[in-house]
Amino acid sequence: MKIARFDGGRIGVVLGDEIVEVTEACGIAPGEWPPVGPVRLIRDFAELRPAIEAAAAAGERLPLASVRLETPVPWPNKIIAYPVNYHAHGKEMQAGYRATNQGFFLKPNSSLSGPADPVVLPNVPGREVHHEAELGIIIGRTARGVKREDWKDYVFGYACLMDMVVRGREERVFRKAYDSFCPVGPWIATADEVGDAEQLDFKLWVGDELRQSANTRDLVLDIPGMIETASAVMTLQPGDIIASGTPEGVGPIVDGDKVRIWIENVGEMTVDVVQGSEGATEVFAQAYVPPIIKQN
Amino acid sequence: MKIARFDGGRIGVVLGDEIVEVTEACGIAPGEWPPVGPVRLIRDFAELRPAIEAAAAAGERLPLASVRLETPVPWPNKIIAYPVNYHAHGKEMQAGYRATNQGFFLKPNSSLSGPADPVVLPNVPGREVHHEAELGIIIGRTARGVKREDWKDYVFGYACLMDMVVRGREERVFRKAYDSFCPVGPWIATADEVGDAEQLDFKLWVGDELRQSANTRDLVLDIPGMIETASAVMTLQPGDIIASGTPEGVGPIVDGDKVRIWIENVGEMTVDVVQGSEGATEVFAQAYVPPIIKQN
Repeated sequence: MKIARFDGGRIGVVLGDEIVEVTEACGIAPGEWPPVGPVRLIRDFAELRPAIEAAAAAGERLPLASVRLETPVPWPNKIIAYPVNYHAHGKEMQAGYRATNQGFFLKPNSSLSGPADPVVLPNVPGREVHHEAELGIIIGRTARGVKREDWKDYVFGYACLMDMVVRGREERVFRKAYDSFCPVGPWIATADEVGDAEQLDFKLWVGDELRQSANTRDLVLDIPGMIETASAVMTLQPGDIIASGTPEGVGPIVDGDKVRIWIENVGEMTVDVVQGSEGATEVFAQAYVPPIIKQN
Repeated sequence: MKIARFDGGRIGVVLGDEIVEVTEACGIAPGEWPPVGPVRLIRDFAELRPAIEAAAAAGERLPLASVRLETPVPWPNKIIAYPVNYHAHGKEMQAGYRATNQGFFLKPNSSLSGPADPVVLPNVPGREVHHEAELGIIIGRTARGVKREDWKDYVFGYACLMDMVVRGREERVFRKAYDSFCPVGPWIATADEVGDAEQLDFKLWVGDELRQSANTRDLVLDIPGMIETASAVMTLQPGDIIASGTPEGVGPIVDGDKVRIWIENVGEMTVDVVQGSEGATEVFAQAYVPPIIKQN
């Protein structure tokens, strides 16, 4: 099943190029604040599924193009991200480490945006903002201490995810935290819909130019390992999002670009890039002389 | 006003060594999941305040010692943390940077714990876990692009906060993300209760030993600057927590320790430290040779 959020917090099931609203069957109030309905939906999905399927079969089909898709889980407990998790990307970044010996970082909920939202470039002159195409993993159950062989019991589904970043040597989280720097969508494809997530092709284009093309089988820390590692440290909650890391081919995006991401069996979306006027900070203004990081 | 959360999500007003329940006046359902009632309470506080004050004046006073205090905001939008934000701590850590040229990092919501919850040390042999005493700043309003002179309009209140960390060279967020690694409490003291937050004494003891003693006037990036910087990058939400950075005197905690934090005009709390059996990960198990970070 492909579950989308649209038009102010409504929930829909996507069927080809159409969508059927199932908000009521999900027990979600679209105007709820903070918007944690999707987190409850994911927690209760097994129970709710028959009612959602019935509503999807009986409801009015609208053209997908007639609605405004939104980020599927706007206020999760946390967004976990694994740095340098494809060897070829590690080489292009000259990184002396991998996710297997660094662990994860976090993105803020406020950086989440949807398929119809532009990526807004901050006003940080002299800095490049780069795209990073990633498989987003959506956690389905509360969990701590998951064994790698049990990983499938804890995954709700998958989504396309872009991890945008201002390049530099300052704190990684800071450079990746801007509003709109975590587009997720166009929907969540449930795990049964996606099949073998450990062998998914995915690609990212800027305009017509193919920039990134890889397969999840080349992950350094694989999906079972990511869930094992995250849950060794933290209690995972339904709706938690894991940004699994980007392959080689990262590069700059500029005002007017259109960035398209496609993941096999999951979906695809294209987001606009616009130059914003906000985002200047003392941190980037200081012409900071960055540390050189060397392997010892 | 001192606003506490207790006994399974109830809300209370603390008056000396007593507490009066005001859950109903706050419009909070104690069993709500996810527990975002406190976020709504903070957003709506100005409107709700007269009813809360009336309930506090009329309600039954219970001994504070008879209730179990809980972390005040268990599921905020985000927890923002400024690294190396006191010069003397920067020197003890031999850090070649400061919050002013690094920016912030994030802690996960799942690391939040309360005054009655123990800090559980992960099972990572050979590593030290350190205490870091910090002023916690609780954001009161949705905000982006706050000017430093307007900072007071966006602060709801303050709390004691400990930022626990496994020392090492791996990703900072990862080493600071363990469950129970962010005790916050014992309540939120509203901004009007605290007075001048830019001149607060605070201290931390392990057992009877005073380990940290400082004043917020010695912050490198001050409170107005922290709010300006965070809101330049991200939309802040009511209930967001800022961990403002720790002064010198950090050090190890071990099984059986009692860690006490006191902040002038805010409050104090003591948390137990216990050795846990969970938390081993591939990352710490790799005997990773860390990068040497040098200033260029």
